[in-house]
Amino acid sequence: MKALKVVKIGGNVIDHPESLQKFIADFAALEGFKILIHGGGKIATKLAEDLGIRSQMVEGRRVTDKESLKVVTMVYAGLINKNIVAGLQQKGCNAIGLSGADGNLIQSKKRPVKAIFSHEKNESIPVDYGFVGDLDESSIDKKGLNQLLEAGFIPVFSAITHNGEGQLLNTNADTIASAMAVAMAKDYDTSLIFCFEKAGVLRDVEDESSLIPSIDPHYYNELKRQGIINDGMIPKLDNAFEAINKGLKEVYVGKADALSSLDNGNFGTHLISTP
Amino acid sequence: MKALKVVKIGGNVIDHPESLQKFIADFAALEGFKILIHGGGKIATKLAEDLGIRSQMVEGRRVTDKESLKVVTMVYAGLINKNIVAGLQQKGCNAIGLSGADGNLIQSKKRPVKAIFSHEKNESIPVDYGFVGDLDESSIDKKGLNQLLEAGFIPVFSAITHNGEGQLLNTNADTIASAMAVAMAKDYDTSLIFCFEKAGVLRDVEDESSLIPSIDPHYYNELKRQGIINDGMIPKLDNAFEAINKGLKEVYVGKADALSSLDNGNFGTHLISTP
Repeated sequence: MKALKVVKIGGNVIDHPESLQKFIADFAALEGFKILIHGGGKIATKLAEDLGIRSQMVEGRRVTDKESLKVVTMVYAGLINKNIVAGLQQKGCNAIGLSGADGNLIQSKKRPVKAIFSHEKNESIPVDYGFVGDLDESSIDKKGLNQLLEAGFIPVFSAITHNGEGQLLNTNADTIASAMAVAMAKDYDTSLIFCFEKAGVLRDVEDESSLIPSIDPHYYNELKRQGIINDGMIPKLDNAFEAINKGLKEVYVGKADALSSLDNGNFGTHLISTP
Repeated sequence: MKALKVVKIGGNVIDHPESLQKFIADFAALEGFKILIHGGGKIATKLAEDLGIRSQMVEGRRVTDKESLKVVTMVYAGLINKNIVAGLQQKGCNAIGLSGADGNLIQSKKRPVKAIFSHEKNESIPVDYGFVGDLDESSIDKKGLNQLLEAGFIPVFSAITHNGEGQLLNTNADTIASAMAVAMAKDYDTSLIFCFEKAGVLRDVEDESSLIPSIDPHYYNELKRQGIINDGMIPKLDNAFEAINKGLKEVYVGKADALSSLDNGNFGTHLISTP
């Protein structure tokens, strides 16, 4: 099988023009088939503030109302996506910027109203997250993505999806990256690469030199039992190992500015299945 | 040769949700290969106002400065483009929303500083239009467009292009539509369809029933000589006949809400070459 890299970058890269420029050059230089999924960053928050649109929060959870959806569609699918694409094109990488609506490549479901226990009211209350889309690997149109990849395009996704009924939806970029990598793993030797602000999984969260180079599920359970894995990392790593369980070859977790080391197999923490 | 329709809609459709919904349904129903190019409308002007970004005008000409470029990229390539795509997908049309940067499909050149005679200063002054892109049929990547069309995608373009050096540029949507239709005319029997606010070319601009159904270059010259063609229409029609001269099969000029009549050959004014 041919190799495919699914790379996800978050707001920490997007918010810093120099980091983004370096990332664009490094991503453009990666060998073989590849897909980029980018998060949002602070530009959308800033634009919403400038427009006097207040982020609605219900019980600590952000609600994407109609006006907020417009803002993220403009910023993620427009401003950020097209500037990343223009930057990649400059580096000779034939990027094509997409949302999940384009080519119906990612069809999500609007998150249903959920009952959440309110400590303030001491009872369960219904929470409507608004225009938020949920998805899994069955939401990905592999055929369309394969056609784009085989035609030589490098898909670059913002985290805006749609429900197939004309409604755009705001979606978690990590979830898109995992779902896409799992879906494509049937046709490609797929690696999923999460770029974030740390060098990878660290024994000591304050010490970048304490990087754990490689973790399999067995070792992961041991690290969790010993309390070595930082609480904030557990959902990310649980999801990564779940994706590996579903047939994904490997997941890397590391710092965006080290991406140029990926083709040497020397990037962040390497998550693999038990041999 | 296979037939291809290149359809352009302007702001008058985009600014009216009901018109846009009807147009989306009618475009989705058009037979065969097709491409949509959409203009901007008033949403970008409104957003710029809300953000306190003033439209710079020099000698009556609009200048696209850095902040204005951000606004049009957000609104045209993000908000409008993705909502049109989601609407077309709902109607079963496999739309893929693109800017010219995507797949390097439209590479334009930043408009050079031009000397303009200022009546106020009574001398020529240099005018920098800012981030505005100019292009012709050689700017279109036919190969990439063909790959998308052959794979079953329906390209939907906003009028944002790039210069290949990482810079996005604001571009005239009519110019993109003409250039694209001429470029594709080598591989397809290409029709260019301009949707605008009038029923077509009218003998009396105040009377929609005075529609001229068909015009060839000979008749066009006669109509101009007789002063029947409205001054505002002359640049549009000059461009249309220039495109026909370059190998385009035909151009239609008509009202967006009549697009469903196109497949019956009964849409607006039909511009053709002299038999």
